[in-house]
Amino acid sequence: MTERLVVIGGDAAGMSAASQARGRRDPQDLRIVAFEKGRHASYSACGIPYLVGGEVSDPQDLVARRPEVFRDELDIDLRLRSEVTEIDLGRRAVAVHDHRGGGRYWEPFDQLVIATGGLPHRPDLPGAQARGVYGVQTLDDGIALLDVLESERPRRAVVVGAGYIGLEMAEALVRRGLEVSLIDGGDQPMGTLDPDMGALVADALRDLGVKVLLGEPVEGFSESGGRVTGARTGSRSVQADLVVLGLGSRPNTALAEAAGVPVGETSGIRTDRRMRTAVEGVWAAGDCVETFHLVSRRPVAIALGTHANKQGRTAGINIGGGYAAFPGVVGTAVSKICEYEVARTGLTTAEAAQAGFETVEEIVESTTRAGYYPGARRMRTKMIADRRTGRLLGAQIVGQEGAAKRIDALAVAVWQEMSVEDVSGLDLSYAPPFAPVWDPILIAARKTAERLERLGTRG
Amino acid sequence: MTERLVVIGGDAAGMSAASQARGRRDPQDLRIVAFEKGRHASYSACGIPYLVGGEVSDPQDLVARRPEVFRDELDIDLRLRSEVTEIDLGRRAVAVHDHRGGGRYWEPFDQLVIATGGLPHRPDLPGAQARGVYGVQTLDDGIALLDVLESERPRRAVVVGAGYIGLEMAEALVRRGLEVSLIDGGDQPMGTLDPDMGALVADALRDLGVKVLLGEPVEGFSESGGRVTGARTGSRSVQADLVVLGLGSRPNTALAEAAGVPVGETSGIRTDRRMRTAVEGVWAAGDCVETFHLVSRRPVAIALGTHANKQGRTAGINIGGGYAAFPGVVGTAVSKICEYEVARTGLTTAEAAQAGFETVEEIVESTTRAGYYPGARRMRTKMIADRRTGRLLGAQIVGQEGAAKRIDALAVAVWQEMSVEDVSGLDLSYAPPFAPVWDPILIAARKTAERLERLGTRG
Repeated sequence: MTERLVVIGGDAAGMSAASQARGRRDPQDLRIVAFEKGRHASYSACGIPYLVGGEVSDPQDLVARRPEVFRDELDIDLRLRSEVTEIDLGRRAVAVHDHRGGGRYWEPFDQLVIATGGLPHRPDLPGAQARGVYGVQTLDDGIALLDVLESERPRRAVVVGAGYIGLEMAEALVRRGLEVSLIDGGDQPMGTLDPDMGALVADALRDLGVKVLLGEPVEGFSESGGRVTGARTGSRSVQADLVVLGLGSRPNTALAEAAGVPVGETSGIRTDRRMRTAVEGVWAAGDCVETFHLVSRRPVAIALGTHANKQGRTAGINIGGGYAAFPGVVGTAVSKICEYEVARTGLTTAEAAQAGFETVEEIVESTTRAGYYPGARRMRTKMIADRRTGRLLGAQIVGQEGAAKRIDALAVAVWQEMSVEDVSGLDLSYAPPFAPVWDPILIAARKTAERLERLGTRG
Repeated sequence: MTERLVVIGGDAAGMSAASQARGRRDPQDLRIVAFEKGRHASYSACGIPYLVGGEVSDPQDLVARRPEVFRDELDIDLRLRSEVTEIDLGRRAVAVHDHRGGGRYWEPFDQLVIATGGLPHRPDLPGAQARGVYGVQTLDDGIALLDVLESERPRRAVVVGAGYIGLEMAEALVRRGLEVSLIDGGDQPMGTLDPDMGALVADALRDLGVKVLLGEPVEGFSESGGRVTGARTGSRSVQADLVVLGLGSRPNTALAEAAGVPVGETSGIRTDRRMRTAVEGVWAAGDCVETFHLVSRRPVAIALGTHANKQGRTAGINIGGGYAAFPGVVGTAVSKICEYEVARTGLTTAEAAQAGFETVEEIVESTTRAGYYPGARRMRTKMIADRRTGRLLGAQIVGQEGAAKRIDALAVAVWQEMSVEDVSGLDLSYAPPFAPVWDPILIAARKTAERLERLGTRG
């Protein structure tokens, strides 16, 4: 008998799962229906700021696989504008609202993949529902914002939130010629970095012309005729024709929770390494799940396309009859803000303290290439080690072109639980166009190891 | 009593050793004399091609620490143009020829660091000693070549050898406006890469206008009045006003061997991990030593500034009374040839076979950034795994800007003996300006793991 797979959510995680399952099982063996409530599937949500900023000119460029490819080549019944409104685990069926006018219907399943993604944080503040207040979670959101920029030519924008998305959006809007104010309640941009590293980014944004207002939580939005006209903090009002919310997201688990699929302490859906939820035949992947942090040994919810792809792929291989496991994460992330590249892996100082580590750290200033080689750029590398064992717990890099991708070598070192002493001996690539003869990573590891040695606490 | 340290060779390894020893022991405790036969000490030999090509305008830019710094700030008695001509282990002294006119004298030591570097391969061919045939081993060599380029304005050059140095020199001479022919007996440039990766580099050189003659060993040089006029291969003659030898180097061990300091099977000086030779109180570091390859588990001699620095530092810390060890290498290297970046780590297919591994490999074409992001460049990644265990044995990358430094993540993975399966699950950094959502490294690892799975031989 043909088994029926239903996938809720047509972006990275959902469509990876569907594709992998299809790759291992033909349509006679497995029927696959994927529901996506928006107009687009399988796109790069991370690319939206570049669409808004103009570096990417066509929204279709962000689409990895067009709907026809799923339907015609992979025999995956992808239904756009089809929103799943309920999961009935007893009947093994989902209720679907067809926004194209097809009404509501039930679709039965034997296997279910929940890939409902993230829900943008939308502050519960006066005026937050006014017209002109935009989120940028989905490609539809991005296209809507782009339309407004082109048709209404707003002059002033407020971006709320100085995390990755907020910063990327602030830069994008400056590129579009808007006057931009960036407002955040925290004391620095990039709350996921340590303060000593985030300060550089604030300066870069100011250099670009962004008005950076930190330590001032937004308390509400002013509006006129239902349309936003500005934002208020405790100490000022900022006029705006447009507000963009860049506050990040949390796992979108309403459907799963209503159906009784257990969520974890981070409020993401709990799965095992094979992406199975606690309910037989129900899988979950992507921004809606929580995963395991290999350094803190705690669950975390991290919304990132690369995890979503891997998790979806893992679920799909397992549904297809193979074996795959998602091993967890070490908190690696990278972003480009103006001319700065910003990257992290492992734990920050604060996170390490929270996870019970006593830490030792060093910050090293160096260059991306040999100092004498044209195009050498500044970079700052921070390394955080466990004081007791010398284990590398985390690292951060802020620098100009060529700096950030170096974080990957450290992500592997963190993953492998290497000590900073061992990292300092690594055989990393060297030639003048690529690194000083001591790569900044090696210097940072060495200095951290030396500090540990001075403290006399190495095991 | 004051102990006496003599260092033979004033470049990376020797001066790192001297500096580290000084950092731990003051002049009353340790007197340090360093002999350098050339006019320059502590410079970046790897930077010479960029000096010749014009990217670096002043030879002094390649000097990491000026002689005065060693003398005045570090109390290291650095003697330039002072060539050690003999080591007498019985008398514990070295014979020094002072090329500044000071004659010959003996300098006694308690501890000795041999950092005599590499000796450029100079083919034993007719005409190889003619004027106009240049090596580029030392900064003095580079400056001499530069003088000739500026004063004699040669029009046509032949570069012999298509390894890293030959390629870098060919590019440098094209930049200087010369017509350049590159001649090598091998079938591809970059003999340290596998042929499937080296081919791209040959094309790039041809695009730059270099005449690339492969599979044609040079058989001799023509000369007129003692001055080189061209090079001969088995099948042709190539006219040249200038010949540059870029054939790499071998450990310069004549002094050590004459004194009875044992060399290994690679003909490099043998040391332990602390850089001690077999002779009490005699240390060696840099291009003159052999080191241990952590994948092949065999000794290798690899001339690279980054190893020389680390080894010198290791020797110096130990001489200074601390503890340091040089852990070995995994064969990581990187180079920039025209717009191509070329990198490798671990073993090539051929090296793996030689080391007794049966291998499985994959080559993946991808891009350095998300395909839709401006500036995304092509890159080709090759991965080589042990067929029996799936262990990553080596990797190579050839690509355009942003490709090559990725080798570092793989260098760590090789170092840690990770399997390609484990590499495919790594948490590497992702954002559209830095990588496709599946980093090329992850794709290559995944494809290699899948091939292993298909072969059904995973342990």
